[in-house]
This record gives sequence, structure tokens and C-alpha cells, in this order.
Amino acid sequence: MINFTYQNPTKMVFGKLVEEQVGELTKKYGKKILLHYGSRSIKQYGLYDRIIRSLQAADVAYVELGGVIANPSLELVYEGIKLCKKEHVDFILAVGGGSVIDSAKAIAMGVYYPHDVWDFYVKGVVPKQALPIGTVLTIPAAGSESSIATVITNYKAGLKRACRFDILRPVFAVMNPEITMTLPPYQTASGVIDMIGHVIERYFTNTSHVSLIDRMSEGLIRTVIEQGRIVMNNPTNYDARAEIMLAGALAHNGSLGVGRIEDWACHNMEYEITQVSGISHGHGLAILYPVWMRYVMDHDVERFAMFANKVFDVPYSDDLETMARTGIDFLEAFYREMGMKMSLREVGITKDQLPQMADLVSKSGTITIGNFVTLDRNDILTIYTNAL
Amino acid sequence: MINFTYQNPTKMVFGKLVEEQVGELTKKYGKKILLHYGSRSIKQYGLYDRIIRSLQAADVAYVELGGVIANPSLELVYEGIKLCKKEHVDFILAVGGGSVIDSAKAIAMGVYYPHDVWDFYVKGVVPKQALPIGTVLTIPAAGSESSIATVITNYKAGLKRACRFDILRPVFAVMNPEITMTLPPYQTASGVIDMIGHVIERYFTNTSHVSLIDRMSEGLIRTVIEQGRIVMNNPTNYDARAEIMLAGALAHNGSLGVGRIEDWACHNMEYEITQVSGISHGHGLAILYPVWMRYVMDHDVERFAMFANKVFDVPYSDDLETMARTGIDFLEAFYREMGMKMSLREVGITKDQLPQMADLVSKSGTITIGNFVTLDRNDILTIYTNAL
Repeated sequence: MINFTYQNPTKMVFGKLVEEQVGELTKKYGKKILLHYGSRSIKQYGLYDRIIRSLQAADVAYVELGGVIANPSLELVYEGIKLCKKEHVDFILAVGGGSVIDSAKAIAMGVYYPHDVWDFYVKGVVPKQALPIGTVLTIPAAGSESSIATVITNYKAGLKRACRFDILRPVFAVMNPEITMTLPPYQTASGVIDMIGHVIERYFTNTSHVSLIDRMSEGLIRTVIEQGRIVMNNPTNYDARAEIMLAGALAHNGSLGVGRIEDWACHNMEYEITQVSGISHGHGLAILYPVWMRYVMDHDVERFAMFANKVFDVPYSDDLETMARTGIDFLEAFYREMGMKMSLREVGITKDQLPQMADLVSKSGTITIGNFVTLDRNDILTIYTNAL
Repeated sequence: MINFTYQNPTKMVFGKLVEEQVGELTKKYGKKILLHYGSRSIKQYGLYDRIIRSLQAADVAYVELGGVIANPSLELVYEGIKLCKKEHVDFILAVGGGSVIDSAKAIAMGVYYPHDVWDFYVKGVVPKQALPIGTVLTIPAAGSESSIATVITNYKAGLKRACRFDILRPVFAVMNPEITMTLPPYQTASGVIDMIGHVIERYFTNTSHVSLIDRMSEGLIRTVIEQGRIVMNNPTNYDARAEIMLAGALAHNGSLGVGRIEDWACHNMEYEITQVSGISHGHGLAILYPVWMRYVMDHDVERFAMFANKVFDVPYSDDLETMARTGIDFLEAFYREMGMKMSLREVGITKDQLPQMADLVSKSGTITIGNFVTLDRNDILTIYTNAL
């Protein structure tokens, strides 16, 4: 285990009708807030009305900015920053999934930054200050409701990039599993796969003696697989929705990454898949993980055998390689069971697009990605090709 | 799963030599602090000197109050409150195990309370304010370094009592596993058993559909059993000490209790055992859990069978009762392996003492304890008798 510092002050307010507490939670931080959301869908199910009523009851004034899209755009972030400055907003309430929350985080740090907020994503600039953010989560997947991460897409530049700063962690996360019952199957499945991915990126590490977090991580993945199957067959099962929603937060709040070096190669490779094909982030990850795992498994076949045993009950044997491959096969089969097309070709990506994608990930071969196994431009291209 | 609110803002600073950061961590909160500790043992290993140097380098002034004993006394708490008021202390740094930290928590809320601080423990009074606390942990066991709980003994009244308030959660927990390498076997074992206990108290619940936390809890218990065996044979194994130290915090920071009703009957019954016999809290728990489990297992034999399967690999069969009993036997054998005498008689408690102990726990039969199975005075006496 390596030295670490970990702090997660996000207040999780979880359960039925907890969105009715949002006004009281918000008024500790803001007098005039930005209500940030995506589509009108939050208005369809009465969620918008309940939030507005709660804000009004707590005497919290608000301005609105909707229109956040999947893979949230830098353009709308600029608009949000302008609006917050003009209206002297002191708090952002993000109502939505990871895209809305990530957009809110970008706006929050952009308000205090005199230059281009995109600098935080591509130039390594560290924000000194950010508006506090609260969240009402509607899509469990990204874990952004209690994470330090934000991912924004600069459509003009054709770049999707992430950054992570402690000051971006939301002050509260209001999480009502009932709200997630109406999510369509593709979005539900993508969320389930995304949260498993957040654990996989941390689980495959070169840091030794991290048994405690390994065991807790395996427990999380097992539960999400089990409960994911339940909600695909019965979308209105509250209990399964609750397990998944809680898992989404725990998978990415950083607690399962303490004391170890994390990987994140597949997340980096995935962004280009979403960019090119328009499929969900979770779907892109589903295509990548089995391919990546088979590409890197020789590096630590014991760890892959352990994964197979602890997550999929593959019995221990002397043949660790077969154990490892069986575990990866089970993972791939689960993704397929969740309705995912499991090749890049099936989602409309052609072979001739792959070199440019590899170039973008590796910044034309100038950087490598991943820590479990370091991948250069050629590795990335091979993995994309194997995923075709 | 039931609705819940959870927040744990404690900053965990973990690893080798992290105590050298304590000055920088402290100066954000305090200009003049109370340095609270137990015996001189912190001075033997250079820890005290490193902390003093770090505080001085950060220009933090301090007054000292040592002398905290196992089962910390209300008398010393009074002394600490007086000292903090007189010296205008604005922060308490607790260097020690659960006893020191619990004592610090009592002082922290006593400083702002015009009446007797004992009211918080026995009268249900809720503190409005408390001094912030930081901790340097030397004994992983109680989890007090990032918990909201404090347990104090009023020796005059012969009462050991706990209370829990969010404002008592320490602002930071400095955790260096190296410091724990010199702990004697009995204290090491007691800590391991105590942290497993903190998970057991939450695991046995009547709340259904709590799979995620169940799986993570089982993973924690498995790891602590595995690593506990390692440190008993090799006390200076850093990696195993690190796993145990981290587990101690996670076992009791509340995260494994979210969304469920917790039990805590055995903790309530244990306090009297320590009071009467002077054995460690962990030792008392080791004696109680197997007896309590056999007494209540019929209430939910499926859960006990699951515990047996997931923690001790007892294979699933149609005979859940045998599965459950086998799991309890394994747990009991582990406690014995850790060096614990496994009956009240062996630790010097006699049959004639039991009725008064049961009276004290049940407040002369006026209250019941436990939520998984509610226990009245007669149940408590039976469990004590079965543990004899």
C-alpha cells in the first residue's frame, strides 16, 4: 500500500423523496443559485416542480440554464460562466446525470478564472477557487455526484478531456432511486457498465498489498452485476435501483482507489470512441475492457485470475491463464447480456478511423496512457484494431 | 434499503511518516491546541518528538494533558475541559487510540456546555458546539479517528456509556501503520476483534436489500481475519499493519451502516464486562459474539448462513442452520486463535455478578437493547450466563 490522503466531504442524502430537502440543503451555501440541467425530461416526472417548490420554500432565488447534452459541451460551459457572473450566482445546483454535473463543475471553476476554462482540461492549470456545487442525481453512472472529476467536450477542437480537482467535489448529492426507474434500458446498462469500469480502472494496479480495497471492490462489482440483471428485467424494482445508485457513488468517490496507483487507460481510449461513434461512454467501455484485458493480462495473470475467482466464482486452478481468460469471457458475456454491441465495427467505426483515434489519445505519439501497463500509440492502435 | 444521510468529512492522511504533516494540518484550525494523549509510550518511539517538531515548525502553540487510561475516565475529561477554558484552546489534537480520541471528543463538547458533560452520555442532551479535533492514531481498533462516537467511563457511578454526534467527527486522522508495529499481541488482537465487531453490529440487520454494503462488509471482515493472522505471527509486517489500520477506520466511519438499521446489543453488553473484569473491549466482544449469535440466529438463519458462506467459505446447502452454526464456530475459533480466553469465567467473572450486570445494561429492566433482535433484561442475563 502506498501513502495517501483521502477526504470526501460530500453529504449523501439518499432515498425516497429526498429531493424535497434540496431547498434546505442549498440555502446553507447560496442565496442566488444557478439551476443547471439537461433536457426537459426532468420536468416530465414532476422532479423539476418538486425542486422549485423546495427552493422557493427555503427562499433560494435561482436562474436557470438547461440544455446540457450527453458529452457536455464547452460552449454551454462558457454560457454558464457568463450567466453566473452576470447574475452574481453563489452556488450551482446540478440536476441530472454525470454530464450535467460535469458541466456544473466546469462552470464553477470558470467563474473565478480570468482566462479560458478549457485550460484546466488541457494545460494542467490548477483552479484556485470554484463555486460550491450541489447535485440532484438522475442517472447513476459517472459518479460525478461525489467525485472530483469533470469531463467536457470541446466540439470545435474535437476533443473530450477530463480533469480532477478536490475543490470540485459537490457539497451534497441528493439521490432518489425512484427517479432512475424511468431510465431507458440502454442508459441503465451504460450506467452499470460505467460504474464497474470505475472500479476496474482502480483494481488493476501494480501496487501490492491492497487486499482490503480489492475485496470491497470485488463486492461492489458482484453486486452491480447482480442488481444490473434485475433492473434490466424489472426497471421499477426500487431495491435494485437503490443498490445501483449507491454503487455508482461509491465506485467513483475515490475511496476504492486509496493506497494504490490507478490505471485509467481504457477511459482515455474510450473518449475517442464516443466522439467518433456517438455511443454512450459505458458502451464504449464495454467494448474496450475485454480487449484491453486480453492485451495486458500477461503482465499480472495472478491478478486477473483473482478477479475471475472473486467476481465470477471461477475456481482456482494451476492454470491461471485459463482462469483469467474465463473471467474476461464472463465479463464480456455480461456486457452482451446488458444489450451492448461488442465491437467497434457494429457501432459504425471503420478501420481507417483508428489511426487518427490513436493519434488523438496519444497526442500524436507524444504521450503514453495507463499505469498498470503503459500503452503507447502503437498499443492503443492495436487495442482499437482488436476491438474492431 | 432505508433512506439515509451520510457525510464523513474526516481527512485521512495515511502512510509512512505522515505524522510529520500534523503541524500543517493543525494550523488550519488552531493557534493554541490541547495535545491530549495517554501514557508516556508515545514518547518512547519518537512519535511525541516528531509531533512536537511538526507543531513548532507550523507555529502552533500547545498545552498538554496526558494520562488517558484504557476506558477513559470522566474525571480526566473534566480536567481537560477546565484546562481548555483556562488556556483558551481552540483545537484538540488527540494522539493515541480510541480511548484518547474518545476523551478528546468529550472535552471538545464539554468546553461549550455550561452543565455537566456527562449529560451528553446519559441524558440524551445534544451538543450544539464542539472544539474541532484532529487525531494521530496509534492503536487501530475503535475507529474513533473518523467516527462520530465517544465512550467514557464514569468510575464513581460505575457506568461506561457512549454517545454519537456528527460534530464530534475529527477533521483529520493521521495514520501511520509503522507506529502500530510495537503494539503487544493482546492489544493487536483486541483491535482486530473490535473492528470486526463494528461491522458485525451493522451486518446483522432486519433491513432487506442491502447487498452492496453486505458484500463490502464481508470483504472487510475477511481481510481483517487474514491480515490479523499475519500480524500475530509477524508484528512488524508493514503491509498487514496497513490493511488493519485502514480497515479499522472503514469499519466504524459509518459507511458500512448506510441504508440499514444497526444492532449494537453486544457493544452494550460488553461495556459491563470490561467494567467488571478489566479485560479489553475487543476481548469482551470476542466472548459475547458467538454466544449472542447462537442465541439470535433463528431470527434470520439465512443471514447467518450467508455470513458463514461469504466470510468463511462454508458451502451452501439446504441445511442453513448447520451452515450458520459452522460459521459461528469458525468465528469463535478465530477469536481463540487470536489468543482470547473465550468465557467470562476465565476472565474472572462469577455467576453471582451477572444479574447486576444485566440490570445495569437494561437499566433495571426498564429498557431493551438491540435492533436485529430486541433483548430485554432476561435475554441479557441468559446471554451472560451462556457466556460464563
